[in-house]
Amino acid sequence: MQFSAFLTSLGTSFVIFVVLMFLFTWLSRKPANDVIYYPNRILKGLDPWEGGSRTRNPFAWIKEALNSSEDDVISMSGVDTAVYFVYTATVLGILVVSGIVLLPTLLPVAITDHTVKLDNTTSNGTFSDLDKLSMGHVKANSSRLWAFLIAVYWVSLVTYYILWKAYKHVSDLRAVALMSPVVKPEQFAILVRDIPPIPDGETRKEQVDSYFQSIYPDKFYRSMLVTNNKEVNKIWKELEGYRKKLVRAEAVYAKSKTVGNPEGTRPTNRTGFLGLVGEKVDSIEYCNEKIDKLVPKLESEQKVTLREKQQCSALVFFTSRVTAASAAQSQHARIVDTWTVMESPEPHQLIWSNLSLGFYGRETRKYVVYFVVALTILFYMIPIGFISALTTLANLRKLLPFLKVVVDKKVVSTVLEAYLPQIALIVFLALLPKLLLFLSKAEGIPSESHAVRATSGKYFYFTVLNVFIGVTIGGTLFSTLKTIEHHPNTIVNLLATSLPDNATFFLTFVALKFFVGYGLELSRLVPLIIYHLKKKYLCKTDGEIKEAWEPGDLGYATRVPGDMLIFTITLCYSVIAPIIIPFGVVYFGLGWLILRNQALKVYVSSFESYGRMWPHLHTRILASLLLYQVTMLGYFGIKKFDYTPLLIPLPIMSLIFMFVCRKKFYGFFRCTALEVACHELKETLNMEQVFRSFIPPSLASAEKLDNDQFEDALSEVSRPAASVV
Amino acid sequence: MQFSAFLTSLGTSFVIFVVLMFLFTWLSRKPANDVIYYPNRILKGLDPWEGGSRTRNPFAWIKEALNSSEDDVISMSGVDTAVYFVYTATVLGILVVSGIVLLPTLLPVAITDHTVKLDNTTSNGTFSDLDKLSMGHVKANSSRLWAFLIAVYWVSLVTYYILWKAYKHVSDLRAVALMSPVVKPEQFAILVRDIPPIPDGETRKEQVDSYFQSIYPDKFYRSMLVTNNKEVNKIWKELEGYRKKLVRAEAVYAKSKTVGNPEGTRPTNRTGFLGLVGEKVDSIEYCNEKIDKLVPKLESEQKVTLREKQQCSALVFFTSRVTAASAAQSQHARIVDTWTVMESPEPHQLIWSNLSLGFYGRETRKYVVYFVVALTILFYMIPIGFISALTTLANLRKLLPFLKVVVDKKVVSTVLEAYLPQIALIVFLALLPKLLLFLSKAEGIPSESHAVRATSGKYFYFTVLNVFIGVTIGGTLFSTLKTIEHHPNTIVNLLATSLPDNATFFLTFVALKFFVGYGLELSRLVPLIIYHLKKKYLCKTDGEIKEAWEPGDLGYATRVPGDMLIFTITLCYSVIAPIIIPFGVVYFGLGWLILRNQALKVYVSSFESYGRMWPHLHTRILASLLLYQVTMLGYFGIKKFDYTPLLIPLPIMSLIFMFVCRKKFYGFFRCTALEVACHELKETLNMEQVFRSFIPPSLASAEKLDNDQFEDALSEVSRPAASVV
Repeated sequence: MQFSAFLTSLGTSFVIFVVLMFLFTWLSRKPANDVIYYPNRILKGLDPWEGGSRTRNPFAWIKEALNSSEDDVISMSGVDTAVYFVYTATVLGILVVSGIVLLPTLLPVAITDHTVKLDNTTSNGTFSDLDKLSMGHVKANSSRLWAFLIAVYWVSLVTYYILWKAYKHVSDLRAVALMSPVVKPEQFAILVRDIPPIPDGETRKEQVDSYFQSIYPDKFYRSMLVTNNKEVNKIWKELEGYRKKLVRAEAVYAKSKTVGNPEGTRPTNRTGFLGLVGEKVDSIEYCNEKIDKLVPKLESEQKVTLREKQQCSALVFFTSRVTAASAAQSQHARIVDTWTVMESPEPHQLIWSNLSLGFYGRETRKYVVYFVVALTILFYMIPIGFISALTTLANLRKLLPFLKVVVDKKVVSTVLEAYLPQIALIVFLALLPKLLLFLSKAEGIPSESHAVRATSGKYFYFTVLNVFIGVTIGGTLFSTLKTIEHHPNTIVNLLATSLPDNATFFLTFVALKFFVGYGLELSRLVPLIIYHLKKKYLCKTDGEIKEAWEPGDLGYATRVPGDMLIFTITLCYSVIAPIIIPFGVVYFGLGWLILRNQALKVYVSSFESYGRMWPHLHTRILASLLLYQVTMLGYFGIKKFDYTPLLIPLPIMSLIFMFVCRKKFYGFFRCTALEVACHELKETLNMEQVFRSFIPPSLASAEKLDNDQFEDALSEVSRPAASVV
Repeated sequence: MQFSAFLTSLGTSFVIFVVLMFLFTWLSRKPANDVIYYPNRILKGLDPWEGGSRTRNPFAWIKEALNSSEDDVISMSGVDTAVYFVYTATVLGILVVSGIVLLPTLLPVAITDHTVKLDNTTSNGTFSDLDKLSMGHVKANSSRLWAFLIAVYWVSLVTYYILWKAYKHVSDLRAVALMSPVVKPEQFAILVRDIPPIPDGETRKEQVDSYFQSIYPDKFYRSMLVTNNKEVNKIWKELEGYRKKLVRAEAVYAKSKTVGNPEGTRPTNRTGFLGLVGEKVDSIEYCNEKIDKLVPKLESEQKVTLREKQQCSALVFFTSRVTAASAAQSQHARIVDTWTVMESPEPHQLIWSNLSLGFYGRETRKYVVYFVVALTILFYMIPIGFISALTTLANLRKLLPFLKVVVDKKVVSTVLEAYLPQIALIVFLALLPKLLLFLSKAEGIPSESHAVRATSGKYFYFTVLNVFIGVTIGGTLFSTLKTIEHHPNTIVNLLATSLPDNATFFLTFVALKFFVGYGLELSRLVPLIIYHLKKKYLCKTDGEIKEAWEPGDLGYATRVPGDMLIFTITLCYSVIAPIIIPFGVVYFGLGWLILRNQALKVYVSSFESYGRMWPHLHTRILASLLLYQVTMLGYFGIKKFDYTPLLIPLPIMSLIFMFVCRKKFYGFFRCTALEVACHELKETLNMEQVFRSFIPPSLASAEKLDNDQFEDALSEVSRPAASVV
């Protein structure tokens, strides 16, 4: 890729960014758009505009984001979001501190080495200006390589130091959140799975209650058996659907009562497929009829579910946080595959359908999913390699000579060369997360937040393996097939050889990501358009309008691997082509700023895992560092530097660092430390409320309708304990 | 080695065994020897002869051993001993069930293959009868090898099945022991290490008490700080020494008052080195003087120790077993390297000097010790290899021709050939255990039983690597150096090639071990002689006599690896030369019988770890099985059997089996399951007594002398809780 193409790409991206920023400033001032630009504040009952005035400085949001404290983030969006900002800040810190040293030293060292003709450049014969700034410009075994070798050490040490501080900080955040004097239902419950078969003459509920009563005679409150809610959920969803339709029909009917038509028109619909075929009926009557039929059906199904569809797992409630925290990490049964306990996740993020899976079922599913994911990762590599090889213009011209006429036109070729591969890649990556989330849930994971973490992990390995390594090596393999001049025999060598060729590709990729990606993120153009379209043509009721602007959460499952990919790319090129560092810094700096705004004003977090995300982020940053160190080892080898073995201690240090951090900090993220759980509550503890918050919505009405019945079906032994408040 | 040499060795061993048995029958009937043959019964206050009559059948002990139940063993010698018998029975079971199938099938298959000239025999040119019974007698790639291949599967499957049953059984044993309604002090205490630095304005004791008081407000009883007892132990030992000397001097003086000399002779001693030099003084006066001086010194040192020598660890007591069991397995602190908790071992097996080591000190020591042990194992290999190579007679004659005259004499050569290598080996092995126990304690392990387990593990790998693999390969390497005809390139191949050559060596080794080893074990000749010599010439007081006959414990640290070596040898030869199986069966059968007698009547177990030994035994049996499977893979390869790859699934199966067992059963051996700990106690719980049982003897008198002081120094906050009984 030529330098001009690179500049064109950068320029275009920047123009797009400026336009999007302008749009944001203009659109976000209109009150009609408040629900798109301030939904989090609106849902929390706050005034969208803090100062009350709409005629502010267009850059006020930047000031607000910069001035917001970590506590603001936690109160508006939870600990998980705060941890995400610790992650962004950590990565930013690593890049800034590395860059401060690397840029002023390595660039002059590289550029002043005039003695060597480059052979590691993609530009067919012509020297690119960018290549002069890279390590490829330094001749083999030059003593100038010492500077680069020391730089590798500097980047590694900076990473260790900043990661260590960050882990401590996140551990503090988690502790403060868990010590909070506010009652959080999940801190009083544990999830018990793999309950052994019911002994003769006992019910499941008696079995569970007597088991925990005997172990925790003072602190056991009561238990809630997990039931198979598939059927009852289906009926409940159907019922809710008709209720919504009824409200909508009534709203439509009310609206049709204009002055000219005081009777209005009763809305009608067809009963067949998608409302397109079948009998035409009066919507209001039809819905009322359906609801009347479904309510008793739901009630009887609720009874059946509570009585007969009990599974081998339960939620057990304690009247003390310490006891619950201790119970969640103690081995209760002699044989590990029975009475398995864990901390309960938040009520609304429990995946009920996974709770009934047995120990061996879960283990088996886990390995099967790992296998499927490994296959997915490996087989996607082939198409990606082809795409990246095909979409470099030179290759296109070689392979499809008839395109020459179009491609050789200056303008067309510049634009194509600048965007074609990157866009292909970005579109391609958008397909996968849903599949990975589905696979993660299929593992039998009991909570949404855990499933999201698992998805994020899988997606990270996918992106690094396929996008970074795949594109890099894929391109080289393709050109090697054509020319056959090098014979790199190991994957590390292959990667090291290929890296410099792809520097500009990734530089453009990063720039596209932050200018266009974050521009779209901040301006929220897509949700805005969708909202206005829906509001105008589809929504009839307030509920429907609210659904149309619901902002969703930050989307860790795809956001984190995306960031990690940029970080991995920046890190791996940080010494080879230090010019990439400012791009990485802008990506994470802009990201921090814009997401701070989004977290405070837009996104609504859908779960709280008290920072359990962090160990995963930490491990993945270290995995990137390891990849970087191994790659550098290979690249120095290719540069025939005599002192390359001096880099060997680095990967070993990283592994030791990983081990020590895991040993020292991870325990507290796996379970709640008792010294944290023992802090006192400020409010009165209402155990009844804690218990009720875990009842799934499809069963909640059963409890209202027939309280005694529900109590009876869920727990009986606990009656006396219920007085402990 | 020739067949006659083998028979001679076997015959001699058997004669020695018969003689020792006769000696046992004769000696154990004499009442004067009761303390040697029945010390365990005497110490437990039982009648040495159950029936009361001494004129019994000389084989009555066999009947008694066979009739004794597991409960008898547990009540006389504890769960650990019972677990040892489970181990013996398991191994015996594996060998018997394997032998029943292997002997009647493999021996005929091997012996009827007349078509091949042996090349894998040590007998220089002459065919040995034993070799005809082995797999070496079957020609390469013969279809007869199918029988041997199926045999390898049979042995493996039998091992899995029996091990699975045994793990379940031991888990039950442990559960029953831990559920016992008898108060065991260690079940109410936890050991807390790595307590962080004391906050300002608090004492260590206040820090510990307030920490646990806040987490366990209801169940915390009090804490005992671990102190540095080095100085106080020294003074206490000196004091106890002089007290013993005083008792002895008084006994000597009293004895000297005969009718002829009614005044008696006051005993004297010299104050210098070993009582050989220095001033001559009156012993009684001298001792009294010393004791008078030491008592106040001890008292002041006790105060100093309790006040000023507090370490960063403590024992924390709870008023409930469940709370203690739960506390021992919960994470208390956010950072894992502070407030580390574990179940408390029995009071008397705590290694106080190791309790003050910090987290990183322990980790570092562990790895240093592993490194030292690895070095030891590797460097011992060289001398052992030489010994085994040199001590085969043929080699001796080759290397030292001047010995020919002696060695060629029939009688000398037969005896020498039979015993020389085995005796060299046995003596050699006696040197190591002390060093390994020292190293294990240096790891910072907090209890004796754990140190013994760690020693046993190290010794196992030592014996298997050095004795079995070392001797086998060493011999071959030596002969290969002389002849250079094979070039086996991998260690597995080398081992497989060498195995048949050493079959008779190991056959003799096993026979020697069981006939002579168990003969000496049962007859207790050495302790008997030492006891009678001591009693006659050294002991003057009852205390000294008791010390002279104290039987000690079973000595797992050396006994288990010894047994494991025999098992490994038998297993590895079970298919190659199935004739070894009966020898293994006799070894473990005889061992079971004789040790049952010793456990019931002789040895006194010095600690109780509730069967924690088992996971170690289990892993080691599986390690042997793995070695066997890999070796067989190599040996079938050498036999050029086309279907050798069919053996590849076996090692994989073993690893999966190991993983599943670990996952399923190990948790309960690492910590007490709560469902087990929650069983109710039958006796009244006296927490004061529980607490006191942990006070080390050198500090115990401080408590008697100055109860308030001690209380004060140990715990203050706990006063109100002390009323909970």
